[in-house]
Amino acid sequence: MKSCHKELWFEIPARRGFVNITPEVERCLAESGIQEGLCLVNAMHITASVFINDDEAGLHHDYEVWLERLAPHAPTSQYRHNGYEDNADAHLKRQVMGREVVVAVTAGKLHFGPWEQIFYGEFDGRRKKRVLVKIIGE
Amino acid sequence: MKSCHKELWFEIPARRGFVNITPEVERCLAESGIQEGLCLVNAMHITASVFINDDEAGLHHDYEVWLERLAPHAPTSQYRHNGYEDNADAHLKRQVMGREVVVAVTAGKLHFGPWEQIFYGEFDGRRKKRVLVKIIGE
Amino acid sequence: MKSCHKELWFEIPARRGFVNITPEVERCLAESGIQEGLCLVNAMHITASVFINDDEAGLHHDYEVWLERLAPHAPTSQYRHNGYEDNADAHLKRQVMGREVVVAVTAGKLHFGPWEQIFYGEFDGRRKKRVLVKIIGE
Repeated sequence: MKSCHKELWFEIPARRGFVNITPEVERCLAESGIQEGLCLVNAMHITASVFINDDEAGLHHDYEVWLERLAPHAPTSQYRHNGYEDNADAHLKRQVMGREVVVAVTAGKLHFGPWEQIFYGEFDGRRKKRVLVKIIGE
Repeated sequence: MKSCHKELWFEIPARRGFVNITPEVERCLAESGIQEGLCLVNAMHITASVFINDDEAGLHHDYEVWLERLAPHAPTSQYRHNGYEDNADAHLKRQVMGREVVVAVTAGKLHFGPWEQIFYGEFDGRRKKRVLVKIIGE
Repeated sequence: MKSCHKELWFEIPARRGFVNITPEVERCLAESGIQEGLCLVNAMHITASVFINDDEAGLHHDYEVWLERLAPHAPTSQYRHNGYEDNADAHLKRQVMGREVVVAVTAGKLHFGPWEQIFYGEFDGRRKKRVLVKIIGE
């Protein structure tokens, strides 16, 4: 069995944002030489997500509006977590969008359907944060 | 290390529906001959889910009503994604229900609790779509 | 390839509660001797979750309030699943918080970001329930 990992760094300039990280994950896979296996991609921070969906700006706007309706940022005083911090909503939004994805590796490629793309979802940005890629297989 | 994969095809006649796919996944596992490992089952389309819950019709009705309350289909004009398409709500519902499950394989069986069953959740049906089963182990 | 698994038992005295299970998962990993691989941790029951977030009491209170707003327990008659049972809301809450996490294993440790902790989330407690830890690698 082979394994490899890589930490990807991001610094999103706004509080929230979505970044397509598929090319970085594909590069990790190519470097690993793994042909058959599983590829885990997870946010290493608990106010961020990794998820798979469509690379379409309208949809990303819809996610932003929808998440803000499900788990509003303001008033920040509505959350007990917000003593020193103001990011309780980010911990909630991350649960809706998920921490991680596991992608099959087949014949040396991410085994994707027609529109699957991997995104980093930031809900409390303006600082450096990491995503972990871990691939096992052979 | 052994690995195997199989793509399962579905065509749900309505816009939304849930299908118990546990027998198909068990068949893949039996064919693989893998005794110990991990089994990934994921929707290959971004308006569908794979999730584990109860095979109970009342609960599936409750999911339908609840998801429609959290992420309503109509009016379709409320979503920017809905230019050529009318399925933005399906992309949102899929995030709540999840893209994938990873199930342990122990002694050649899916290592399940008492009521766990794997479902395909369709939120934008009436066309052919796929689920991927990927199993690695030995 | 090596593999190991362990079932952890819990009995939460209230209907709902969160328990940090990171030390138990770390113990399983140490016993396995696995240095590089993947660690799956999943609820074996469909009214409970395993998720990764912050070990902070204020946040756990926020999750409780928020989940009760997204998927209220009462009135129990609002759910068709609630014939013999009264736990339909627990099946809904579990979908928001997730069934499982997959954690990378690197150099014999859970490969975590600075604040990641693994939690068991109970939404229909007052009885014995299980979490599965399955680790594969070498």
